[in-house]
Amino acid sequence: MAVTLNDVATRAGVSSSAVSRAFTDGASVSAKMREKVERAAQELGYRPNALASSLTTGRTKLIGLVSNNFHNPIFLEVFDLFTRGLQERGLRPLIVNLSQDEEPESSVRLLQQYSVDGVVVASSTLPSGFAKAFRDARIPVVHCFGKSVASPDVHVVGIDNVEAGRIAARELIARGYSSIGFMGGPAQATSTQDRLAGFLEIAGQTDGLSYSHSFADAYSFRAGREEMQHLLTNPHHEAYFCGDDVLSIGALSAITDAGLKVPEDIGVIGLNDMEMAGWENIALTTVHQPIVPIINSAIEVITALLEDPDRYPETRLFTCNVTDRKTLKAAG
Amino acid sequence: MAVTLNDVATRAGVSSSAVSRAFTDGASVSAKMREKVERAAQELGYRPNALASSLTTGRTKLIGLVSNNFHNPIFLEVFDLFTRGLQERGLRPLIVNLSQDEEPESSVRLLQQYSVDGVVVASSTLPSGFAKAFRDARIPVVHCFGKSVASPDVHVVGIDNVEAGRIAARELIARGYSSIGFMGGPAQATSTQDRLAGFLEIAGQTDGLSYSHSFADAYSFRAGREEMQHLLTNPHHEAYFCGDDVLSIGALSAITDAGLKVPEDIGVIGLNDMEMAGWENIALTTVHQPIVPIINSAIEVITALLEDPDRYPETRLFTCNVTDRKTLKAAG
Repeated sequence: MAVTLNDVATRAGVSSSAVSRAFTDGASVSAKMREKVERAAQELGYRPNALASSLTTGRTKLIGLVSNNFHNPIFLEVFDLFTRGLQERGLRPLIVNLSQDEEPESSVRLLQQYSVDGVVVASSTLPSGFAKAFRDARIPVVHCFGKSVASPDVHVVGIDNVEAGRIAARELIARGYSSIGFMGGPAQATSTQDRLAGFLEIAGQTDGLSYSHSFADAYSFRAGREEMQHLLTNPHHEAYFCGDDVLSIGALSAITDAGLKVPEDIGVIGLNDMEMAGWENIALTTVHQPIVPIINSAIEVITALLEDPDRYPETRLFTCNVTDRKTLKAAG
Repeated sequence: MAVTLNDVATRAGVSSSAVSRAFTDGASVSAKMREKVERAAQELGYRPNALASSLTTGRTKLIGLVSNNFHNPIFLEVFDLFTRGLQERGLRPLIVNLSQDEEPESSVRLLQQYSVDGVVVASSTLPSGFAKAFRDARIPVVHCFGKSVASPDVHVVGIDNVEAGRIAARELIARGYSSIGFMGGPAQATSTQDRLAGFLEIAGQTDGLSYSHSFADAYSFRAGREEMQHLLTNPHHEAYFCGDDVLSIGALSAITDAGLKVPEDIGVIGLNDMEMAGWENIALTTVHQPIVPIINSAIEVITALLEDPDRYPETRLFTCNVTDRKTLKAAG
């Protein structure tokens, strides 16, 4: 069966704690001792067991990656970037899928059992208290895509969703629309609330603008389609800021099915700039959320927290900008 | 800091191995002893450490989930179903992303270090030998979406891709097309080779049919769009079986951009029936791959292998059928 650390110690004629130290990054061990141990390990085909060694080092190199809404296509990019980024640093993602259960306690308990070194919460719809539960359990945590606040309790990396709402509203106004709507994601999501606040702030400052808002049930194609179908049963705005790209694509399908043309009859602007927004048969104009630097930064923060768990909480925000494609009329 | 097993043993006045047995499913321990240990554990706020206990039980309850092509939207459903299905059984998915590195050895080594109880390889593009490397290392393994063979070396759960190719070809012929093409995924993928074999088998048996085939570089929107753009520079077939749904959507965008209509000018049939195929602004007619029963079954097999690692290898195949939407002309 498997070769153990004790087998290597016996073969090398050293103590098992010496073998353990030889395989621990940064542990004190002489060059001669290390050579002896490595030779014995090689002869026996021994491979250090990350979990056994975690009992000595206190490090498992496991990072809990906690998320919900696995059906939003933006998560294709999020999962790919997180899993590759963690792997490149010798860390391993342990996924927790909260599609059904959003109790922070059960995730905390589960990830404690696996002695994860840290947790990344990747969600714009979970409340801020969710990530805090990990901090309270003294597990290093970063909330990626979390709500940006002036005095963060936990590390947050993402965008300022209020500013994103302002950017979308300003873009619609700059294009000459005089009647605009916000079709948000779920009303209880912090991302929805913040995007709405920014949208209303700019709309309220604009003379002669007609505007209103409503919410979809989820960040999903189906919810976006249904909410737009509902909006189209009444007189509609000239253009809509939809809460995210997948909602926008659902809205576009409802608009087309109603016999209306985009952007001639109705304009649509989304948020995220996920891969599908750039597909030529979708060609969605959208507020680009810079996913790559956000996820790199979240990995940087969690890595830094492993070294210094008491690091002062910070909010890292990244700038959004509009990616122009084909769903808004030209300015002028 | 954290309460240890030894603290519980001291408090309960028993040996640490008795505490360990009390927290191990199925281990021999008297009711009185268990009660003593549980009381001490509760008083101290002790939570069993899954990794520490794995050193006693030999089980980590970690399952490696190894995949590539994280950008194919079918993986939204695959990841959601796998992570939820494993969680429901008390198992935990440790993700390995092979987007860049497809050496089986490095995945085997990595997952050995974490003492995973088993591995699910979820890919139709990795060669059969990939999953075999885990079996050779005596790690229970299931290849989900792997090549179906008459004499499997490892457990395979998925569809018969040759039959899927036959189904697509038969559907095109039944719809009255007399000139059909197969626009496959990457030529080296077993799924592409098998789908092509089935397509050619039926096409070759059909009098007066004109047919040909070609390959895209990857299962991706971009590759599907580029290959169809290339095909449209020459006289084209009346309808195409595209290797999967994301390729089909790329092909549809190229067809539309060329000023052609679907299904009036060209028909398209895909494979998978991923969520986006059902989006009304895509409405792809496609060969439905029954993802839910396939993934449930793969989880069943890996669970059974944990109990009996020497279980005789089997291939479990699930039936495909056509989901009719709007990208093929009506029969007759």
